[in-house]
Amino acid sequence: MKEFERSRLVAGAGELWRLGTTARFLEAVGDGSLPEEAFHRWLVQDYLFVEGFARFVALTAARTSRPAQGLVIGGLAALDAELGWFVEKARERGLDLGVEPHPVCRRYVDFLIASGYSQPQEVLLAVLFGVEVAYTVAWGRLEPAGPYAEFIERWTAPDFVAYVVELMQIAEAHPHPEQQPAFDEVMRHERDFWRMTWEG
Amino acid sequence: MKEFERSRLVAGAGELWRLGTTARFLEAVGDGSLPEEAFHRWLVQDYLFVEGFARFVALTAARTSRPAQGLVIGGLAALDAELGWFVEKARERGLDLGVEPHPVCRRYVDFLIASGYSQPQEVLLAVLFGVEVAYTVAWGRLEPAGPYAEFIERWTAPDFVAYVVELMQIAEAHPHPEQQPAFDEVMRHERDFWRMTWEG
Amino acid sequence: MKEFERSRLVAGAGELWRLGTTARFLEAVGDGSLPEEAFHRWLVQDYLFVEGFARFVALTAARTSRPAQGLVIGGLAALDAELGWFVEKARERGLDLGVEPHPVCRRYVDFLIASGYSQPQEVLLAVLFGVEVAYTVAWGRLEPAGPYAEFIERWTAPDFVAYVVELMQIAEAHPHPEQQPAFDEVMRHERDFWRMTWEG
Amino acid sequence: MKEFERSRLVAGAGELWRLGTTARFLEAVGDGSLPEEAFHRWLVQDYLFVEGFARFVALTAARTSRPAQGLVIGGLAALDAELGWFVEKARERGLDLGVEPHPVCRRYVDFLIASGYSQPQEVLLAVLFGVEVAYTVAWGRLEPAGPYAEFIERWTAPDFVAYVVELMQIAEAHPHPEQQPAFDEVMRHERDFWRMTWEG
Repeated sequence: MKEFERSRLVAGAGELWRLGTTARFLEAVGDGSLPEEAFHRWLVQDYLFVEGFARFVALTAARTSRPAQGLVIGGLAALDAELGWFVEKARERGLDLGVEPHPVCRRYVDFLIASGYSQPQEVLLAVLFGVEVAYTVAWGRLEPAGPYAEFIERWTAPDFVAYVVELMQIAEAHPHPEQQPAFDEVMRHERDFWRMTWEG
Repeated sequence: MKEFERSRLVAGAGELWRLGTTARFLEAVGDGSLPEEAFHRWLVQDYLFVEGFARFVALTAARTSRPAQGLVIGGLAALDAELGWFVEKARERGLDLGVEPHPVCRRYVDFLIASGYSQPQEVLLAVLFGVEVAYTVAWGRLEPAGPYAEFIERWTAPDFVAYVVELMQIAEAHPHPEQQPAFDEVMRHERDFWRMTWEG
Repeated sequence: MKEFERSRLVAGAGELWRLGTTARFLEAVGDGSLPEEAFHRWLVQDYLFVEGFARFVALTAARTSRPAQGLVIGGLAALDAELGWFVEKARERGLDLGVEPHPVCRRYVDFLIASGYSQPQEVLLAVLFGVEVAYTVAWGRLEPAGPYAEFIERWTAPDFVAYVVELMQIAEAHPHPEQQPAFDEVMRHERDFWRMTWEG
Repeated sequence: MKEFERSRLVAGAGELWRLGTTARFLEAVGDGSLPEEAFHRWLVQDYLFVEGFARFVALTAARTSRPAQGLVIGGLAALDAELGWFVEKARERGLDLGVEPHPVCRRYVDFLIASGYSQPQEVLLAVLFGVEVAYTVAWGRLEPAGPYAEFIERWTAPDFVAYVVELMQIAEAHPHPEQQPAFDEVMRHERDFWRMTWEG
């Protein structure tokens, strides 16, 4: 997406940016070859991830100054709705969301919660931007068509992209030496998460 | 308000409940004798309080399980809007919100932030209920008329009361031995805050 | 004490420094007129304060870089021993330590815990220095004689003073705009705490 | 070690206990076949781990009631000394401790820090016991001889074992449904850490 081409944090991540936003799983969504089992694994683990991610975003709201705080609270309310949407999508497919998180999911959430309590707000905003921009760009490489069109559309909707642009602007307007390492770590976790959705 | 007559926490607070929800300040709002200076002090200090309270509510959102978490996030989004509304009310009156919090305000917020990081979710919900129920009942004793009608209406609106009822139900459905002491402490801080608005 | 005459934070606190380190209670210790009831109140409330203070120091240890962290951990181990010593002093006098903290004590601890979770390490070190320097200087104005000689000696012992000097050096070598306001707030709480020991 | 045969948490971990306390790395220490490169990797990464672990133990000290708190503070002071000892051992071998933590090390520390801020004290004590008992039992399977005798002796010293026994007793005297899952997660991280020391 052109919106993020000028991002300092995206550029600084180098090869990790590509690794965190491309995946066999997504290619298979695009060419229609995705095994149903992989999609179900993604759906359940992504729900469990968003549960933890929402806690991180709430911590960020607790630790951020205004006006950034208002933007973060808006994002948190959207995640709250998203959790309900995941429950509905899982019910439609008869999937059980009460399972254990995969170790890869758990470690991503551990990273977010540990950061949420101990990093300064500049870093929290860079992490939040990282998680959201990775998702919108990763899904945004696909045409919103086929059996998963609803999912592709969700993370490429203009409102969501506009929110991620605002996060980028706020995070990058408040530089901090720990922003890039934290953003890079998000990309490593995104890479590992996508691999897990494909490989189990 | 009848809605809260059966509240276990309200009943358990005894005399502190009355002290936390009645005030010379409010009587003076009701009989039209409130000095403008006291109203301005309240407006500025309440804004500063809500800034800290919003951080507490965000911490509660970070540390609460679903479905309570969804309710708390809704409350946080309302507080975010309320902060904007306070800014507007202050601007209409030419008041500066960039002042130091009064020691009484600061200690209330310290209590909330310390609790937010260290108490279990059952206690966080009791504190959140305490802050909100004190406000809706204190303002609810007044007729929504006169120069401050907008303020009285804000904290007695049916949607707000319904939210506070839901908080009561969730908090009281999950009892914990530290709930009552924490709720009582909220009432002590409410009492002190109202005194400060009157006395300076 | 000469050691702290060059402290930037002490000088910056102005009149609050004097208010936080002098007290009717201490004068009465010095001239032998202290009511036993006041001494007992101090002993019990100071124990309850140190319980909360130790949690703050542990949070500081969790959030501080080396080498400051080592100094803080040493201070924490000393506080752990001090809690045992308080228990012994209370037992000798037949005092019950299982009482409620006084509101003034509780609010001081709330300030410390809220700071411990949310302030950056530079500010945590300034707060830790503030609490310790206030104690060593306040007691250090007295001759170590009379019925309370053991107490005076405790907070004026050369090892303790050397520890406080190290805290000053580390805190003041890492300036931060929030250090002075936090140090000043410590002095306000010290002032209030001493008044409470005298007035009840 | 016989001391831990009756541990409820050790027994409950089942196969994970064996996986977390045995390793190719340790076998190679025992039979003298350890590549120097692997030992150096262990030494550096274990130092970086202990840096993070010390933060976790400080958080546990901040969030634990007495008398457990005193035991934890004693353990923290020992870790502080251990960090100095690691620096010395690294200097003797010309190793640079200022490197990046390995992802496996980082994720273990993320788990500890996330737990330290968000788990109740019963779970914190179970995690602390897990980390320490894994180390004393893993090293305790080796004869304290050969070039690494100093390392084997360190984690099998009677004082250290006695400390770990006390942690077991306190943790297991305060059961909580989240203790076993957290203890098991420690074992998974121990297993992964040992693998990393061998495989790089």
